[in-house]
Amino acid sequence: MLSEFELIEYIAAGTRRPAPGVVVGIGDDCAVLQPTAGMLQLVSTDALIESVHFDRGWHPPELLGAKAASVNISDIAAMGGIPRYAFLALGLPVGIAQEWVKLLLDGFMAKLAEHGVVLIGGDTVRTPGPLMLTVTVIGEAPHGEVCYRSGARPGEVVLVSGPLGGAAAGLAICRSGDHALAERYPDLVLAHLDPAAKNPLGRELGRSGLVSAMLDTSDGLATDLAHLCRRSGVGIEINAASLPMAKDLAAVAAALGEDSLAWTLRGGEDYQLVFTAAPDAVAGLVRLANDCCGHTLFPVGRVIAGAGVFLCGDGARREISMQGYDHFG
Amino acid sequence: MLSEFELIEYIAAGTRRPAPGVVVGIGDDCAVLQPTAGMLQLVSTDALIESVHFDRGWHPPELLGAKAASVNISDIAAMGGIPRYAFLALGLPVGIAQEWVKLLLDGFMAKLAEHGVVLIGGDTVRTPGPLMLTVTVIGEAPHGEVCYRSGARPGEVVLVSGPLGGAAAGLAICRSGDHALAERYPDLVLAHLDPAAKNPLGRELGRSGLVSAMLDTSDGLATDLAHLCRRSGVGIEINAASLPMAKDLAAVAAALGEDSLAWTLRGGEDYQLVFTAAPDAVAGLVRLANDCCGHTLFPVGRVIAGAGVFLCGDGARREISMQGYDHFG
Repeated sequence: MLSEFELIEYIAAGTRRPAPGVVVGIGDDCAVLQPTAGMLQLVSTDALIESVHFDRGWHPPELLGAKAASVNISDIAAMGGIPRYAFLALGLPVGIAQEWVKLLLDGFMAKLAEHGVVLIGGDTVRTPGPLMLTVTVIGEAPHGEVCYRSGARPGEVVLVSGPLGGAAAGLAICRSGDHALAERYPDLVLAHLDPAAKNPLGRELGRSGLVSAMLDTSDGLATDLAHLCRRSGVGIEINAASLPMAKDLAAVAAALGEDSLAWTLRGGEDYQLVFTAAPDAVAGLVRLANDCCGHTLFPVGRVIAGAGVFLCGDGARREISMQGYDHFG
Repeated sequence: MLSEFELIEYIAAGTRRPAPGVVVGIGDDCAVLQPTAGMLQLVSTDALIESVHFDRGWHPPELLGAKAASVNISDIAAMGGIPRYAFLALGLPVGIAQEWVKLLLDGFMAKLAEHGVVLIGGDTVRTPGPLMLTVTVIGEAPHGEVCYRSGARPGEVVLVSGPLGGAAAGLAICRSGDHALAERYPDLVLAHLDPAAKNPLGRELGRSGLVSAMLDTSDGLATDLAHLCRRSGVGIEINAASLPMAKDLAAVAAALGEDSLAWTLRGGEDYQLVFTAAPDAVAGLVRLANDCCGHTLFPVGRVIAGAGVFLCGDGARREISMQGYDHFG
């Protein structure tokens, strides 16, 4: 078993290179940063707890580490920012294999590096309970290019950065223990195990100046849109026929006796960007997302006066606000 | 039981007032900050896990919340900084009483407020395991006034901001279950339950420009000094006769069959500041600490060429490096 200090050494060894803005990284009481002049700073913290957010039984350590990085980087992307620095608080269960922990850290660091993020601090502790990873990411964006949840206005279009429901389907496949299904739909399994943060798409959207409000889908589209509506003081109508479902979602839902529409609306952890823009900005945004990052944007609905999230289709209209994932539900 | 969103509302309700530098606090994907021009930024993360770092059996929730704030604020103080913003990731065991959680949060927020720190983000999750609090604190200090661990030079004096061993003694009293002892020595019990971050003393020491290296005692003096020695490329000799022991330490050690010197050298969590300065700066620093914050400083040893931490007394000299607390030990 590695000692606490050996573990910190292992982590620090991967982070020795000087990085822009980092005066001191791991090794002092605090990391010391030189903020970039003219930039606002974006800070987000997320905790991942074993058996609540992941299952070591099916989550390979490299992918779990990568996911812990991605879900936090996604929060920076959802503000239109550039992710810069990360901090990792790691609670390791007594008796956990050293090799497993190293793979977890390797996956975490590789994903950070892929996004240009530097690990500059954290804490490592033993725990008698489940494995715990709390990641804090600091990013930045110029004044005037930060995308808040509060800027949506009636008449605007609601767009999504990619298909929905994949992570929920992948989780259901993993939970089912059906290996044939997992082998047949590896992309859905990976949507759960290794979601991709939409960076630099978020940054490019922020830079465009065309996005009025944005967030990422972590709790499920219905719940996340309800947050956006409440912060913006508006309502949203989603067109059921326009919802981009992950490939093979219907087939997997049928195989498992589940509802693909429920996965699409309420499944969490897709980490797509959802944002609003004026109708005449949509064509430009679609082109921008494709040119900068190869992303296809999907217009899924419109902002309305009032409050609440509504699903419209086949002449019907029903409220779906807050029908997503509640960690305490 | 509160839902996740109700809990976030409870937390956010205490943090609604606008605060300097905060563009957006709780309620978006990230907190958005406007860094202070000309300041370096200090960031620290600490995780507290039930049964490893605290015991709900004897730790009142208000004091546990206060401690979670203090130990992080202490890291900012140890760099000579001003604590500004906090983020809380809270893992709540299934079935925990709502009232207990509110008291925990009240204690946390009250301690933050006492130090002028604003809570601007976090995450709340359920856990099947022990209660978990991961706190990230961001502080700031002007260029040239940050105190690193790396600046100690041979010939300098080592100073401590107050008595040592109290937290270890308090923990031993709590563990013993000896209520008479706890009632007789409330200050020692409080040294464990509610340690005080040495803020603004740390800031004043940084501002003086007289401190060459500094850290706080979290793992025990011997281990913490070893960190400082390694980062500075020096050794340290501690004069056993000069070590400031917490009041009544010897009496409690005798009552519990423990060793008060071991508590003083190896006991963690006193959160005293330990720092180095040139001999001719000591008198001024002693006066400064008394005038600004009523703290009595204790010169406990000197920086030497070489490496390692040595305890000197009665003509003997023995190495004590790294004999403190290892979270994985």
